[in-house]
Amino acid sequence: MANERIGFIGLGVMGRPMAENLLKHGFSLTVHNRSQAPVEALVAQGAARASSPEEVARASDVVITMLPDTPDVEAVYFGPQGIMNGVRAGMLLIDMSTVSPAIAQRIDRAARAAGAQSLDAPVSGGDVGARAGTLSIMVGGDAAAFERARPIFEAMGKNIVHIGDAGAGQITKACNQVVVALTIEAVGEALVLAAKAGVDPAKVRQALLGGFAQSRVLELHGQRALEGRFDPGFRLRLHRKDLHIALETGEALGVPLPVTRLVHDTIREMVEAGRGEQDHSALMAYLAERAQTRLAPAAD
Amino acid sequence: MANERIGFIGLGVMGRPMAENLLKHGFSLTVHNRSQAPVEALVAQGAARASSPEEVARASDVVITMLPDTPDVEAVYFGPQGIMNGVRAGMLLIDMSTVSPAIAQRIDRAARAAGAQSLDAPVSGGDVGARAGTLSIMVGGDAAAFERARPIFEAMGKNIVHIGDAGAGQITKACNQVVVALTIEAVGEALVLAAKAGVDPAKVRQALLGGFAQSRVLELHGQRALEGRFDPGFRLRLHRKDLHIALETGEALGVPLPVTRLVHDTIREMVEAGRGEQDHSALMAYLAERAQTRLAPAAD
Repeated sequence: MANERIGFIGLGVMGRPMAENLLKHGFSLTVHNRSQAPVEALVAQGAARASSPEEVARASDVVITMLPDTPDVEAVYFGPQGIMNGVRAGMLLIDMSTVSPAIAQRIDRAARAAGAQSLDAPVSGGDVGARAGTLSIMVGGDAAAFERARPIFEAMGKNIVHIGDAGAGQITKACNQVVVALTIEAVGEALVLAAKAGVDPAKVRQALLGGFAQSRVLELHGQRALEGRFDPGFRLRLHRKDLHIALETGEALGVPLPVTRLVHDTIREMVEAGRGEQDHSALMAYLAERAQTRLAPAAD
Repeated sequence: MANERIGFIGLGVMGRPMAENLLKHGFSLTVHNRSQAPVEALVAQGAARASSPEEVARASDVVITMLPDTPDVEAVYFGPQGIMNGVRAGMLLIDMSTVSPAIAQRIDRAARAAGAQSLDAPVSGGDVGARAGTLSIMVGGDAAAFERARPIFEAMGKNIVHIGDAGAGQITKACNQVVVALTIEAVGEALVLAAKAGVDPAKVRQALLGGFAQSRVLELHGQRALEGRFDPGFRLRLHRKDLHIALETGEALGVPLPVTRLVHDTIREMVEAGRGEQDHSALMAYLAERAQTRLAPAAD
């Protein structure tokens, strides 16, 4: 299927390297982005340029979107000159943004009404994974559409899982973000308790890695917190957004998520205090500050 | 040092196999326990019997205690016919129970006053690890005392770490229990959200294991919750006790532990509802019930 014409909308820190990997794998690409610098870069590598999402759709068999937030996705699909104005029967629409499952289902209904297919396919692995082509991709939608998209996904990711119907990819991503945030809080509360008690949190981390408390968060984010290294990585403001999606979805379904709520509110405090661009492991440093202690050696 | 005479007090589900491993490694052992059945079993394997903690101390160079809870430890060390009545200069007292760091420090002060040494050395790994001799042992106290105890610990465990001064072992154990409980809650909230949304939680677990959400809890406790298999394992009532130790310690030190508090209270609800003997992974099932869904297939 490498001769399907692909459109790509949203060339940010994630979307640009993903689109570049599609080009490297020989896919023909038409791109669109609000700011033009990444468009120029992609065109220099062989992509065609389109002036609107609608024009991308008209030029493509498969359209991929990778956008920051819910309003962006709504505008790009359903706004004036949006994808839905250019959709045709037989097309495949793939939203790889992290948005609510409800929006994934809305896109799916609109695609079906036009005789087209859709997939929600959010990713994890960050910009590092996007550049390396090693993203995890969690996919919701038709099994047939998933098979059609597989060679495209394989150009961008490694751990590619079809989870279920439309919205299931976004649900899985929300679950992922809940587990990661709450595990950061868990490790944070524990290491702060140790530090304040005068026990070396590095030794505690090392001891805990050998047992049931082991996690990648304890390993990676724990180490970052001990070094005080909070360059992103994954930004707190984006993690707050993702937890908000989980909370909204929980409310709609009648699922109480008490700890997700509490951790969301703590992260929102940090974002409101101007720390939204820090890596999410900075949550541990924030917990330490609230306890008037520190996990990393004082900077000189 | 295999010719040090060892005393062992507390032959419960953990203590008995730990004492048996010491016998198997050739240590001479004097034992004491409230109920006599495990004492008979140890005596049949070559141990001597003592009628009180004081008598154990008089017959031993090193005394190990493995007791259920704080009041037991206080009574065995400081009560009538307690260890402290029989302590001599040069002895080594090792409490392997999970109790508060404050008690570890109290034992340490009393031991020093008598010219003896002490270590707090709580374990993780459960009765399976106790039988297999593969416990993780987290040790607080003097480095010299730790080196003296090392061959004894090596008969009972594998991952043996000297963390810091008196109490540091108990702090580390409290940290471990905080991380494990909060990670169970994290995985629980996520899988319940998936289940209620109609997405297969087994597929979500599988997808999440490949990324930053990976943890041993997601792997092991997550699988238990999906199978509805809540035979202990580690009992909820003991995990509640351990979280209480963390909260008390946090209060004494001025460390807010908001999520530990919330998860403690949820587990306390379960214990009060008669579920204290279930494995701690049952917390996930409880979260599912509160959301009127389930993680495991219905039992017929």
